[in-house]
Amino acid sequence: MDLTLRSVGVIRSPFTVAVGTPIQPAYARGAAGEVIVADPYVEALDDIEGFERVWLIYWMDRVGAFQPRVTPYRDTRAHGLFATRAPSRPNPIGISAVRLLRREGCVLHVADLDVLDGTPLLDIKPYVPEFDAHPQSRAGWFEEPGEDRRLADDRFHGGRDGGAGGES
Amino acid sequence: MDLTLRSVGVIRSPFTVAVGTPIQPAYARGAAGEVIVADPYVEALDDIEGFERVWLIYWMDRVGAFQPRVTPYRDTRAHGLFATRAPSRPNPIGISAVRLLRREGCVLHVADLDVLDGTPLLDIKPYVPEFDAHPQSRAGWFEEPGEDRRLADDRFHGGRDGGAGGES
Repeated sequence: MDLTLRSVGVIRSPFTVAVGTPIQPAYARGAAGEVIVADPYVEALDDIEGFERVWLIYWMDRVGAFQPRVTPYRDTRAHGLFATRAPSRPNPIGISAVRLLRREGCVLHVADLDVLDGTPLLDIKPYVPEFDAHPQSRAGWFEEPGEDRRLADDRFHGGRDGGAGGES
Repeated sequence: MDLTLRSVGVIRSPFTVAVGTPIQPAYARGAAGEVIVADPYVEALDDIEGFERVWLIYWMDRVGAFQPRVTPYRDTRAHGLFATRAPSRPNPIGISAVRLLRREGCVLHVADLDVLDGTPLLDIKPYVPEFDAHPQSRAGWFEEPGEDRRLADDRFHGGRDGGAGGES
């Protein structure tokens, strides 16, 4: 089966390297940027203005190789990768619920952005609380994190110039 | 840039065709299934048991072609595709927050499943309320839906034998 993606746009942000990039939108208050949607997909933005948040689905193009166990930013202990939001995943797909400030044509102005500048966009989905919000859901080791780190370092990006956001 | 995915497992569910499949986990109470993770990725499941919900990220392999405007299941009016959760997306990536019942080796037993049987798995992320839950987020046209449909029909699957879940 062919599992090939197409970029449908690009994410512009203030963050050009992983080090210092917020690891989640929850830790990125005030970080504004733009989502620039490519021509064939602009009509698909109609009516998006009514949503306070949107999910950005993106390709973390500068992250390192998959590791089955990792010590995530929010802990001092190692966990299975699928029990973390670390970016070094088998498929480097990130999801971020960002605040939508306004739309101008092919551009979405967004805030609470935890994504590296130039990251390829794969999809935009409206954030719908009825589907997506489970505020009481038990959250494993995140409930007693070993670290209160909120910005990325270079552990998942091999010291290279970049990294597609902190966690995902 | 090469944007090629690899399947990391498969989702088993009671739903073999799109028609009648719940369009979201919120409408799939009691629908149980299994997530079967392939060998190279099983170690990455360690510590996932502590989470009440996980995000399944998957490839909607039986959905029809991208359409920029669609009339979604929950409305009688057309909207831009990116303002809906309809599955006919430029990249057919679905995200579903399902309940995790238990883990047995390479198998996650899950409930609230809105995914078609045999759907390729791309990623598993823990559901973390601090990152993912925004219960008051304004939800555009979803706040006054024109339809109360909760199960899919075949509008996005061209009458073919299948479809990767209802919405995503």
